[in-house]
Amino acid sequence: MSEFTSKVDKEARQRAAEVLKKRFLSLIEQINKGEPLVMEIPKRTLTNTVYDEKRKLLLLGESKLKRSFLDLNEAKRFMQTTLMGSIIYDALVNDEYPTIRDLYYRGKHSIVLKAPNGRTYEENTWDEQKESDSVIVDIEVFTSLLREEMLILSKEKGKVVGDMRLRSGNDVIDLSKMGHGAYSIEPTPDLIDFVEVNAEFVLVVEKDAVFQQLHRAGFWKKYKCILITSAGQPDRATRRFLRRLRDELKLPVYILTDADPYGWYIYSVFRIGSISLSYESERLATPDAKFLGVSMGDIFGTNKKKPYLSEKERNSFIIKAKDFDVKRALEIRNYSWFKTKSWQDEINLFLQKKSKLEIEAMASKGLKFLAFQYIPDKIEKGDYIS
Amino acid sequence: MSEFTSKVDKEARQRAAEVLKKRFLSLIEQINKGEPLVMEIPKRTLTNTVYDEKRKLLLLGESKLKRSFLDLNEAKRFMQTTLMGSIIYDALVNDEYPTIRDLYYRGKHSIVLKAPNGRTYEENTWDEQKESDSVIVDIEVFTSLLREEMLILSKEKGKVVGDMRLRSGNDVIDLSKMGHGAYSIEPTPDLIDFVEVNAEFVLVVEKDAVFQQLHRAGFWKKYKCILITSAGQPDRATRRFLRRLRDELKLPVYILTDADPYGWYIYSVFRIGSISLSYESERLATPDAKFLGVSMGDIFGTNKKKPYLSEKERNSFIIKAKDFDVKRALEIRNYSWFKTKSWQDEINLFLQKKSKLEIEAMASKGLKFLAFQYIPDKIEKGDYIS
Repeated sequence: MSEFTSKVDKEARQRAAEVLKKRFLSLIEQINKGEPLVMEIPKRTLTNTVYDEKRKLLLLGESKLKRSFLDLNEAKRFMQTTLMGSIIYDALVNDEYPTIRDLYYRGKHSIVLKAPNGRTYEENTWDEQKESDSVIVDIEVFTSLLREEMLILSKEKGKVVGDMRLRSGNDVIDLSKMGHGAYSIEPTPDLIDFVEVNAEFVLVVEKDAVFQQLHRAGFWKKYKCILITSAGQPDRATRRFLRRLRDELKLPVYILTDADPYGWYIYSVFRIGSISLSYESERLATPDAKFLGVSMGDIFGTNKKKPYLSEKERNSFIIKAKDFDVKRALEIRNYSWFKTKSWQDEINLFLQKKSKLEIEAMASKGLKFLAFQYIPDKIEKGDYIS
Repeated sequence: MSEFTSKVDKEARQRAAEVLKKRFLSLIEQINKGEPLVMEIPKRTLTNTVYDEKRKLLLLGESKLKRSFLDLNEAKRFMQTTLMGSIIYDALVNDEYPTIRDLYYRGKHSIVLKAPNGRTYEENTWDEQKESDSVIVDIEVFTSLLREEMLILSKEKGKVVGDMRLRSGNDVIDLSKMGHGAYSIEPTPDLIDFVEVNAEFVLVVEKDAVFQQLHRAGFWKKYKCILITSAGQPDRATRRFLRRLRDELKLPVYILTDADPYGWYIYSVFRIGSISLSYESERLATPDAKFLGVSMGDIFGTNKKKPYLSEKERNSFIIKAKDFDVKRALEIRNYSWFKTKSWQDEINLFLQKKSKLEIEAMASKGLKFLAFQYIPDKIEKGDYIS
């Protein structure tokens, strides 16, 4: 296989294999010293999740759990962790690119023990993928290696176009020469090199179809931007790619979604990440991403600005909020990172109007309106929420 | 906008606008001649859907419906069709790229009539998108223009890599130089030119993550193939792109999915299309696409071949079929295009074993096994179902 895989990958797997080996060898050392076998892993619980106000990130706290091999309650999880560690290590040294689904299958079997008393005991390593997935996360926090660094691949929806050249694998790809198509981001965006970038900001659109429209209309050419779509809820690679654009190229990031609590949620995932996976925030989140719209103020106007929709358009375009929209809005209003005045105003206006709007309704006023008036106007005026 | 859009698009919209204009002008001619206003549209009903054995396509039959403007039952639909026709025409001449969702919004409003008797009548053009979508299909069959030819865009999941160069918009893109990423197919694949292709077959994998694995392992380099993923159920553009590879480059097409009725359904969509949209088959379907696997024979063996899984692997990997799997299998068994002996054997073996298998289970035996043994072995031996 190796003749066809990239040098970048070979180096990455060597690095990861080293770290993994070293971390798990520390367990062998415990045995050699005659110590009880214990794995120390940062706790991934809500109480050990801290919102770092300054860095605007969800982070794991200091608490660690000790997993003892000799504790009956923890022995199975201990076994699962070392089993998964060895499967991932084998995959690394054998030029494999497993997915988390593969890893589940690779480890799934029954362990049979014929005890000295003559009885036979049988135990499955794991039964469902959520068990093995959770073990993978343990290994990520135990080794400080993200799954992507261990060459674990996943499906990837994110696309990008813009005036930039990047190096991926053995190739340099010009993202300004994608025709009507786009570049699909790889599942391991940390292995990308940004070779040359000529852009002033990044615009992320939730919906793939809107991305297609803006791309085709030449939006990114006219406004010198990197145009990205997450095609719905963003996956890890798209989030990491965006974060790297922000960090390494210092580009401001604007996010465009439907005007509804689900759109805010997508924004929130880009900006902060999720509570259940807060250990990743530090590398996957883009804390200063700005919510460009569509905002309730764009629909209804505020005391500071006129709405972008006429009353007649509002009547035709607005969708009545469902109960689950209201429920989600109430939840989101309580998140620490939505406690700013601008967000509270936005959410309260939604709760008052109980209305939502799709970005397509804005596009239906004309692509020229969306691409060459609404979006650039809002960016120029700094009319975003953060 | 026009300075940023491609010449290809400009020509395409000119062509479509001409056809649309001509077709709808025929209605004006009827009025000028004093004839009753009637639109003749091929019927899109199950009874007017024919499976063409020879061409292996689902096609619309000869039946046409006549939609009369002066028939109370048809006047609204008549109005909707001309309304949508004019919206699409406007979009074409104004350099717009609407989506079907946009078109729904663009046409959505209330028509108010103040009658001479002093009463006011109000009627919505349409209330839900399924109404406007259905009108779009009417216009497609009325004009013989597919929506893509009218520059109606949509979200697009399909990705491709391989040793080929294609022209899209103003660019020539080298699909062998995508690094670890991939090329996202445009929503209007008929506007693509195949510039140069160096490949012996096309492999379509249902799952994006498996595509990532095969791509990364260099599968398409080693076996000279074009590698495509539909990322689940294929969309129109991916189907059309595949069909063009088949027709214009005469490449054999193999499809790789999970071993379950949903996988067969995906294969069926590629090969035939769907009954509800049979008017598209003629251009979107790839009738001689071959189902490479995973087949029940690969799992359990047949009297002609050994299984690819050991009994132990089967025990770990197989998933018990659910009731809806069995239900779908029974439906599929009745489709005309699954009436071949090899398909009937496959479906009957499934119904007997009531077991399914994910492609990831094969990958868990090692990516080398999947990429460099299982897939090439099966292609070489002609071990597929069709």
